Order: sequence, then C-alpha cells, then structure tokens
Amino acid sequence: MVDYMKFLSKDVEKLEASDVREILKLLEKPGVISFAGGLPDPSTFPREELAEIARSVILEKGKAALQYAPSRGVREFIDAVKRFMERHGVYIRGEDAIIATVGSQEALYMLSEVLIDPGDVVIVEKPTYLAAVQVFRKRGARFEPIELDEDGMRVDLLEERLKRLASEGKRVKLVYLVPTCQNPTGVTMSYERRKYLLELASRYDFLVIEDDPYGLITFEERSVQPLKTLDREGRVVYLGSLSKVLAPGLRLGWAAGPEEIISVIEKLKQHVNLHASTLTQYIAAKALDGGIVERNLARVRELYRMKRDVMLEALEEYFPRGSRWTRPIGGLFIFVWLPEGVDTRALLPKAIERGVAYVPGSAFYVDGSGVNTMRLNYSYPSVEEIREGIKRLGRLLREELEGKTG
Amino acid sequence: MVDYMKFLSKDVEKLEASDVREILKLLEKPGVISFAGGLPDPSTFPREELAEIARSVILEKGKAALQYAPSRGVREFIDAVKRFMERHGVYIRGEDAIIATVGSQEALYMLSEVLIDPGDVVIVEKPTYLAAVQVFRKRGARFEPIELDEDGMRVDLLEERLKRLASEGKRVKLVYLVPTCQNPTGVTMSYERRKYLLELASRYDFLVIEDDPYGLITFEERSVQPLKTLDREGRVVYLGSLSKVLAPGLRLGWAAGPEEIISVIEKLKQHVNLHASTLTQYIAAKALDGGIVERNLARVRELYRMKRDVMLEALEEYFPRGSRWTRPIGGLFIFVWLPEGVDTRALLPKAIERGVAYVPGSAFYVDGSGVNTMRLNYSYPSVEEIREGIKRLGRLLREELEGKTG
Repeated sequence: MVDYMKFLSKDVEKLEASDVREILKLLEKPGVISFAGGLPDPSTFPREELAEIARSVILEKGKAALQYAPSRGVREFIDAVKRFMERHGVYIRGEDAIIATVGSQEALYMLSEVLIDPGDVVIVEKPTYLAAVQVFRKRGARFEPIELDEDGMRVDLLEERLKRLASEGKRVKLVYLVPTCQNPTGVTMSYERRKYLLELASRYDFLVIEDDPYGLITFEERSVQPLKTLDREGRVVYLGSLSKVLAPGLRLGWAAGPEEIISVIEKLKQHVNLHASTLTQYIAAKALDGGIVERNLARVRELYRMKRDVMLEALEEYFPRGSRWTRPIGGLFIFVWLPEGVDTRALLPKAIERGVAYVPGSAFYVDGSGVNTMRLNYSYPSVEEIREGIKRLGRLLREELEGKTG
Repeated sequence: MVDYMKFLSKDVEKLEASDVREILKLLEKPGVISFAGGLPDPSTFPREELAEIARSVILEKGKAALQYAPSRGVREFIDAVKRFMERHGVYIRGEDAIIATVGSQEALYMLSEVLIDPGDVVIVEKPTYLAAVQVFRKRGARFEPIELDEDGMRVDLLEERLKRLASEGKRVKLVYLVPTCQNPTGVTMSYERRKYLLELASRYDFLVIEDDPYGLITFEERSVQPLKTLDREGRVVYLGSLSKVLAPGLRLGWAAGPEEIISVIEKLKQHVNLHASTLTQYIAAKALDGGIVERNLARVRELYRMKRDVMLEALEEYFPRGSRWTRPIGGLFIFVWLPEGVDTRALLPKAIERGVAYVPGSAFYVDGSGVNTMRLNYSYPSVEEIREGIKRLGRLLREELEGKTG
C-alpha cells in the first residue's frame, strides 16, 4: 500500500474545495430544485449559430484553429474581444494589453499567483465572490471586507478602513470587486462610488480587480461605466467572460490591464497550460464579430428579467416577515437576509430534503458572518421551479421561525 | 506612474519564460526554416471529420456541450479516453481515476503544485522535457538527472543514485520521464528497464510520472508497454494528450492515476480554471469513439516516418564528421550531439541569420550541460524545408568547425 499522504505538498492543505461546487455535486439527484448554482439557462445558448460557426471555422481555418496558439491568445480572438468591449463601453488604455484565459476563474487564479504574497492585504466586498476568496486565501491574503449596500461597496467605509490601515503602517495591495450585478448580491455600484474608488486607489496606491461577468446582463436602462473605462492611471485589471453572455462550455475569459501585469500572467500561463483552446477562441472570435452575442443578449436579458421578477414576486408571497432581499438590475442572483436566528447553513440539509437548494450566504463572507443569509440563483431554474422552490423554501423558513418562537 | 514591480509577488521571479517559446516568437519572420518547435503537421488534422463532429455535437448536445462541466471532466470524454487507452494497451488500475486537463502541460503543472515542496528530490532524464523542468523548478525541486541512451533512462545509474541518496538520508519523491519517443531525444525505454524502474519505485518508495504524448506515434512494429500498464502498486501517474494524435487546438490532455492524487488535482483545478472546455471535450469524445484518431494515426505515422527519414538522410549528408544523432522509432524529434567545442546556444543567432532554427540542447539539461547538442523537430517543416534547413545548418556547422580548427 502506497501512503499517498506523504507524497503531497504542504500547500495542499490550503486547497479548500468550493462549498458551492460540493453542494452542486449533491444536487445531481433528481427532484431537487436548485437555486444554488450560477449556471446560465441553456435555452439561451445560440446553438444553430455556434454549430455553423464551429463547422466553418474548422473547415476554413482549421490549420490554425486546430494548432497550438500563443500564450496571450489567438490574435483574432484578442482583437474581437477588444472591439466587443468597445461596443459596450469598456475602454482600455493604450498601454493596456489583453490575455485570453480559460474562463475568468483562470484570470483570478493567475492574478492571485502573480500579485499576492502571504499577509498581503486584499479588500473585498462583504459579501463577495467565493471563488475569488479561495484563490486569494490560498496565497495567504489577509482580507479586509467592506460592507456594501444597494449602491455597491461603501466607499466611505473603505476610506475609513484605508486610513486606519495606513495609520497602522499596513499597505493595501488590492481591491477586488464585482461592481456590476454583483455575485452574490446582484447590486450595482453607483457612478459616484466608482469615481471615488479610483481616487482612493490613486491616493492610497493600490490596484483594482474589476470582475465583470455580468456587466452586459442588465435589464434596466441604466448606464454603467466600467471602472476600466474610468481608469486613467492604469490601476484596474478588468476581467471579462463569455460564460454568461455566450456559453460557458467555450471556457473563455480574458484579463485586460497594464502590460506590465499581463506579461507576467503570460509567463505563468506558459507554466499552467500554455494557452486556452485555440478552437474555442476562433469560434468565439467569429461569434463576437458576427454580432451573435448582441443578438443573443436581447433574449438573455428578457428571459432573466422575467425570471427575476417571478422570483421577487414569489419571495414577496412566501418568505417570512422580517426577511429582506436585493432587487438586482441584472445578473443571475438575488441575495436574502432572513430574520436573526435563522442559520441557513444548518438549514440546508432540511431544505434539500424538501427538494430545494441554495447557497448559504456565509460562504460569501470572509469573516464568517452572514449566518442568516442565502444566495438564490434565478437564471437556471424554470419559472415553475422558481415559484415552487421559493414556496417550499418559504414554508420551511416559516416552520423554523415558528418552531423557534413557539 | 504606477510602479507595478512593487505589486508583484516574490514568486514571480521563479517564473522563467520558456526558452523554446521565446525562440518561437522570434521565428515569426518569414523565410526561416524552423526545427525549433514541436508542432504537429497541420495537414494531419482531420478537418472534415472534426467540422462535422463539432457541428453535430453543438446541435444535438449543445445544452450540455456549451454548459459548465465538472472539474474532473465531461463523463463522455473521460469514458472515451479510458476506452481509447485500453485499445492501445494503456490499462489503469481499478483504484485509478482520470481527470481532463487543458493539455498535458496543465497536468504537469498541477502535479508539480500538489506533490512538490521546496527541496524535494525529482529525478529526470538527462536530457529531459524543458516545460516539465520549469514547473518543477518553480516549486523549488532539486533535480537529479540520470543519463539516457538508446534504451531510455539508464536504470543502473538510477539505482546507484538512489543508493547514494538514501545513504545521505535523502528521499526521492518523484521520477519524471517520457519513456516513449522521448522529448527531446526521441529514444524509447526498453521493456526490461521499465520493469526495473517500477521495482526501484517500490523498493525506494517513489512515484513516477509517465508523460506519454508520443506513445502512439511510433513508426516501427515494436510493442511498447506503458509504465502505467505495468504498475501494480499505484505508483504511476500517466499523462496523455490529444495534441499530437488529433489536434493541439482542442487543448485537451488527461492525468490517470491513483484516486488519492487525482482528487487533490481536482481541488486545485477548481481554483485554477474550474474545468477544461466542455465543448472540446464533447468533440474529442465523439472523435475518439468514432475511431477518428486511429484512422488519422495511420496518416500521421506514415508522414512523420517519411519526414524522419528525410532528416536522417540529410543529417548524414550535410552534418560534420564527429556528429551523432538519435534514430527515433517515433515521435517528433531527433537529437544531435555535435563535436566538442560547438556551442549551439551561441550559434543560434547565426543560424537564424542563415534562415534556420533549432532548440539548443542545453535547454533540456537541468545541469546546464549539453552545450554541443541540439533538438531538431521534423514533424512540422515540409520535406523540402527539412532538406534545405539541414543543408544550411550543416554548412554553418562546418564553417564554424573549420574556423575553429583553422
């Protein structure tokens, strides 16, 4: 018998498995309505268009599209991404560069690897995106969570925190945030706060990671200026992804930011996996330039707005008094604060027993708070499932609360 | 001005850029015949078949093929890979598992991350595959290179080294090798040595990484038993890849080995990029099960055998006396030892000036030796280019040697 434990690196203990993905594994049993994932509705995938594009790309450009590619990414893809961003108001600086990544998760991982040393201070939203926290934590980051409200991260609290940290002689290296249709809360940062965040970045000399997978999935006419577009000094690294606007199965994202940082990521990419799939980059380039994403976005927005509305109505109808939730202008998630005393993590097995699942909100709080919160996804389940699932969850919560008070 | 240097992690200095890839960048200027890369001949890509498969997979299975996938990989792909390996004599144990990776580079990277701590002893062939060395070095591995000859790694020397290290109280964690059609030399390890290597693995309690991208690209009838198939104790992690037998642009490889190790890699994969492209996994699964790879292999073997022969003949004709080279039974490379005194790294700029490129062999020696060696790739250049390139190189070498002696 080989004792594999003694062959493992000491760093392995830093690898927590993702709560969310472990829960998703449990959910493969049928009958459970899941609000736990973050999957797009597969009916939105433009299958006919992508099938035709894939076919013609392989036939016409196969010699290149099936070959190895540069670590930065396929030229056609990078250029198409740049044009795509520009069409949607995401402007990078002349000194910035773009690198293709295997989803934006890979961009997060690589940024974390090249920027963070143990003890480095990283500011995140409270609550924030779980998978980002995991990669930062693996590097030994020290988190400073900043509350958010319906206008995004509270930059007034951020400024206080920055002052305090500076007075303690502590330097903040990085602010990570999902400013538009945030994961997990769905809230969108206001223009004023965006401007102020960048002022603080300049004053306190930190970098900003703008994680923007949902920026185009907005349902309401509201002009949102990306931090990258407002970035004069080259402090923002922008992360984009095709997973929510085209198809996750292409596994493509990108990082756009200062050449000095992108070039280091490129070096790391040579170690990690050389490059993202050449074929899916060629397919995506053609889909982007052909306007497939924009045509598809119209359908995605309509469908998700409808599902959001159904979930908001059901929450109103079934959830217990004393609960409150966000009303996102886009994205995939609604976040719920339940009455004090409800422990959503402890409740999850009961919920799954009743045939409904969610992610306990505490998973998104780096300080372990948020015990009475939950994240609900509305993009993947059907309208009927949303109604039925929220009904089941509401009944369970009422019973719990009555049991507790009675 | 932002001083980006002060934002970079201290680990960044461990990231060397790949010599080979840096050279490949230089080669984008036209007119240079390159023996430097390791690219398959794009005429071997089964474009018609893959175009049709891609189209039908997206149309018929698009809801799954364009969606997120498990970190282990798409079930259909993993099963197809298992059947594919079995058809070609690669048998894994019942306790083994398979994980899909973004090329086998990613498997190397992740194995290195989960197995190696600073100072861990890793045994490699001398010379060995550059990109493996880079990821091991990044983790702080201490290398022990073992000479190889036409029958692969000298296991007699390995045993001596193991004894010596044991007597010094040093534990060997890992032996990394490319046993079949090795990169960079093209040599194939004999059956007896394979058996003996595994005996040593058991006796000295180490793990073995069998990197096997070229195992099916053999030109001569010679039965090669994979180390994995001979592995009774679960000491071998086998790395497979579709890059050389189907198409690199799918960016798919896999690691097959003990569940205890694969499950840790899976956790890391959740951090790194969640999973390899769902779409290319579905395409590859169908190509594997449809026998596309086998049909294609017949063409690949014939073409590469012919190119190898052309290169061997040209070497015979044009290279200076006192040179010797390998005669691989397969794979993509011939390795050349030039007369003492020739420094192939110093010579490279002159060679590129003459319109021909190669990789200086010292890049493949962890101890910096091999100054008078070079790796030549014959899969990518055309027959005419092989003849002309070797002629140019031979002339340059003769001039150098005459200059030196004269």
